[in-house]
Amino acid sequence: MTESQAFGHMSKGIWWVEDYFSGRGLVAYQIEKFLFDEQSDYQRVRIFDTKDYGRVFTLDDLMMTNELDEFAYHEMLVHIPLLAHPNPEKVLIIGGGDGGSLREATKHPSVKEARLCEIDGMVVEAAKQYLHYTNAGFNHPSSIVTIGDGIEFVRQHPNSYDVILIDSTDPVGPAEALFAEAFYNDVLTCLRPGGIVAQQTESPYFTPQSVKMIYSILHKVFPHVHTYMSMIPGYPSGAWSFSLVSKDVETPTQHFNSQRVKALGDLKYYVPEMQQSAFVLPAFVQKLVKGE
Amino acid sequence: MTESQAFGHMSKGIWWVEDYFSGRGLVAYQIEKFLFDEQSDYQRVRIFDTKDYGRVFTLDDLMMTNELDEFAYHEMLVHIPLLAHPNPEKVLIIGGGDGGSLREATKHPSVKEARLCEIDGMVVEAAKQYLHYTNAGFNHPSSIVTIGDGIEFVRQHPNSYDVILIDSTDPVGPAEALFAEAFYNDVLTCLRPGGIVAQQTESPYFTPQSVKMIYSILHKVFPHVHTYMSMIPGYPSGAWSFSLVSKDVETPTQHFNSQRVKALGDLKYYVPEMQQSAFVLPAFVQKLVKGE
Repeated sequence: MTESQAFGHMSKGIWWVEDYFSGRGLVAYQIEKFLFDEQSDYQRVRIFDTKDYGRVFTLDDLMMTNELDEFAYHEMLVHIPLLAHPNPEKVLIIGGGDGGSLREATKHPSVKEARLCEIDGMVVEAAKQYLHYTNAGFNHPSSIVTIGDGIEFVRQHPNSYDVILIDSTDPVGPAEALFAEAFYNDVLTCLRPGGIVAQQTESPYFTPQSVKMIYSILHKVFPHVHTYMSMIPGYPSGAWSFSLVSKDVETPTQHFNSQRVKALGDLKYYVPEMQQSAFVLPAFVQKLVKGE
Repeated sequence: MTESQAFGHMSKGIWWVEDYFSGRGLVAYQIEKFLFDEQSDYQRVRIFDTKDYGRVFTLDDLMMTNELDEFAYHEMLVHIPLLAHPNPEKVLIIGGGDGGSLREATKHPSVKEARLCEIDGMVVEAAKQYLHYTNAGFNHPSSIVTIGDGIEFVRQHPNSYDVILIDSTDPVGPAEALFAEAFYNDVLTCLRPGGIVAQQTESPYFTPQSVKMIYSILHKVFPHVHTYMSMIPGYPSGAWSFSLVSKDVETPTQHFNSQRVKALGDLKYYVPEMQQSAFVLPAFVQKLVKGE
């Protein structure tokens, strides 16, 4: 129990209030049942059931995934880059231990290897046991799980992947290095020709300076940088940005083929028109990613 | 102070936690200073400064407008319908006492009358005094303020307006009648030929049944019904829907002219491409508005 006072509507019960970066950016939800709560070598891993978001998975008290809106994150992180690539066969997911990105990547018939490289084995084990809504991909024949440091993995595998998905936590603490120039250079080397990278790039409303910083670095390393957005209530502000970058693929639609969307089956968020419309950014976000 | 318990990150201080519809859908923010707090004939009117959202205006403890994201609501509620109309001269705003929609409507050079019809005079007075970030439109020469019931006003003014903006609270309590078939029929009669109506239509994530209900009624009354969305962190889930409906305008773009966007000056959210892209809905929202 904190020493905070709460006004306004607030039902009786146990609430989770996420404070994001020191007092800015909020998500609040009512807890029904704690299922998992352990300290791993890297972070505090918690899974609990809530009233608003269904089953919630947090790392160091920040929302990672929830049952209500996980599809809005995973479908958009995965299908936009995979459909921007003409024939993705090898996909690397860095982070993403809940399995949601793996589940979406393995829906693409072209994918022969979908490798998850997650630093924290406890996250994968907890997801396999408790996150029924994201863990289906772990059993897919093209899935491979590597428990290890994504930065090392990328460095040791030059010219190896068609699509790299950086499915990480915020750029503070453990994941900070996943938003650094040195890492992006290694990612560039890890790509096969025609390769594409997608990454979650934070909230333009609540952490505009962080967004600006990330894009200034991406522009240094990658010749083609695009930004798209998805509406994800469980993340602070609900308005989340993603980067789509490449050395040689110029636009999100140049290799797009709507027949490939049909092969993915029923989706909850992604529709083919989003391969263009998700890149239409609010005016203030356009300025941020241009460094204005 | 409620009897709730709060876990997770939560800075010390006074927090506002908005519980939306009985325990579902949350926004939380830290209060810095109360500026206005009165009970009007209709509702509790509060204005206060916060850490995350700047100056916040609430009615009956629900967020109406805030300094951080008000543009994402007002620009999208106003410019999408006005730019869907070939030459909007007379605009009626029902509700919207904070003045934000009035401010945006008066940016259009074609508009000769922008009438705000707000039932609660206290809201307008409080906005004029405290909401510097939305109240600029009140002083515009084409603005007219009517303090009165929008339902009555619409009934008494057939064939009078080119665009009607329903800028209301949620469809519970005072604003419930603004989402009813009888009202929509009167709105249809209040339009001049070629007229267009836009309305906020709630959160597809947190109140899907409400969204479904609103669209089933709109489809009964209006031959052309479209749905678009905007990312508004201060509203529960941050993913907000709007309707664009008409008797005779078939699409949002058939009368669109990008030259008219330039005349609006610098905008923070709306960009011309949104006249199409904002109507590309997530798959689950497409189902909801079709009644599936």
